Amino acid sequence: MELKSYKMIISYVGTEYCGWQVQAGVATVQGIIENLLSRTFDKRIILRYASRTDSGVHALGQVAGFTCESKFTAMEIQRILNTQLPQDIAIKAVEEVDPEFDPRKAKRKTYFYLIDNGEIRDPFKINRAWWTRHRLNKSNMLAALEYFKGKKDFIAFMGSGSGAKTTIREIYDISVFEKGDVMKISFTGNGFLKQMIRNIVGTVVEIGKGRFKPEDVEKMLKSRDRRTAGITAPAYGLYLERIYYE
Amino acid sequence: MELKSYKMIISYVGTEYCGWQVQAGVATVQGIIENLLSRTFDKRIILRYASRTDSGVHALGQVAGFTCESKFTAMEIQRILNTQLPQDIAIKAVEEVDPEFDPRKAKRKTYFYLIDNGEIRDPFKINRAWWTRHRLNKSNMLAALEYFKGKKDFIAFMGSGSGAKTTIREIYDISVFEKGDVMKISFTGNGFLKQMIRNIVGTVVEIGKGRFKPEDVEKMLKSRDRRTAGITAPAYGLYLERIYYE
Repeated sequence: MELKSYKMIISYVGTEYCGWQVQAGVATVQGIIENLLSRTFDKRIILRYASRTDSGVHALGQVAGFTCESKFTAMEIQRILNTQLPQDIAIKAVEEVDPEFDPRKAKRKTYFYLIDNGEIRDPFKINRAWWTRHRLNKSNMLAALEYFKGKKDFIAFMGSGSGAKTTIREIYDISVFEKGDVMKISFTGNGFLKQMIRNIVGTVVEIGKGRFKPEDVEKMLKSRDRRTAGITAPAYGLYLERIYYE
Repeated sequence: MELKSYKMIISYVGTEYCGWQVQAGVATVQGIIENLLSRTFDKRIILRYASRTDSGVHALGQVAGFTCESKFTAMEIQRILNTQLPQDIAIKAVEEVDPEFDPRKAKRKTYFYLIDNGEIRDPFKINRAWWTRHRLNKSNMLAALEYFKGKKDFIAFMGSGSGAKTTIREIYDISVFEKGDVMKISFTGNGFLKQMIRNIVGTVVEIGKGRFKPEDVEKMLKSRDRRTAGITAPAYGLYLERIYYE
């Protein structure tokens, strides 16, 4: 049999999982996919992957890969997995790639966060968007988001327990889209620290409520102190949208 | 205290409920709302309502009402309910109405049905749309839907166990919208028989797959025999959108 490398694009609703990464004793997306692959190939398969999403975070385009002696085409791998996966996980695409391909070596990543600002809680958005009933000052939020663009030390917006070697990241773009009561904030960067987007969104929502001013973001970034920034937005509003490679 | 009548517009995700209507020993949307109101008013409140949605069917605009000696404004009723209801039910609006108002006396009702025709199952549409992977012939589906418009005897498209006095209904409009892989079929009529929309959609999807021809619908309607028509589409793709009154 031939040694083959596969790249997979994976979509999942994060609600029922303790995040992406394998952990003993709990359901994780990585764990479920690795178990199915290990059964298929009758040997232990370990995935390489692009992003370690937290418990409750969703994905439209997680990327993972593996290398293995295989008789299967990419399409066969996709079908084998999709027919066995639970309904809240789907393999959107599989392709055979060069064995050098490393999902961790992303060039850019895009995440978005959904805020539901409707007067009444929308039952169809449970676990899908952060409902914050307080009227938000959107122009202040937009002004605040400007301060996060560019190459900066984001340590004040990093969750504790991260093993990151550097806390410098570059955000290339932040875009805001509104549809009805839902505000979608899209972030594209070369990478994001642990809970960085949720901490940015939590802070920006507090700015929308008037707790901080937009220009306070500059002080927060300079302080390098997590305690100066705002709350952490809930995981269930966050979506890993897409990972870009060279 | 004053005798007041209230009209409520209710949205719910039907997934966790055995339908709208109160039934002993199971969770129903009507049961949950009646229990909260009965506790609030310290007396048994029975709702009148527009539509008895089946188990798993969703609603954006169910209408229900009640009359009761009350010191509460409409806004207070809404707040009392929304703070206590489970997250998958929301009261979108409450207004005080004439005691003559009867939610059952609707002039028109609009339901829609969502079909997901994507190549890959979308995890975010579990229990929200009917995934039918088979490539559907959409022009045949549109042609078939034309036969359902107008005033007709829909007995061949009625689920068993209905107590309807007449099986004649009038469908004023059927519209189809497409967005990405999702097809939304919207039905507006003076009323619908038990499972009538699900039976129409099931038949139309089978026409899309080539099992029947569009013109077969005419024969099915004339046969007055449920067995001549197609399958019943799953409940979870159906949404009660809006109830109209004079």
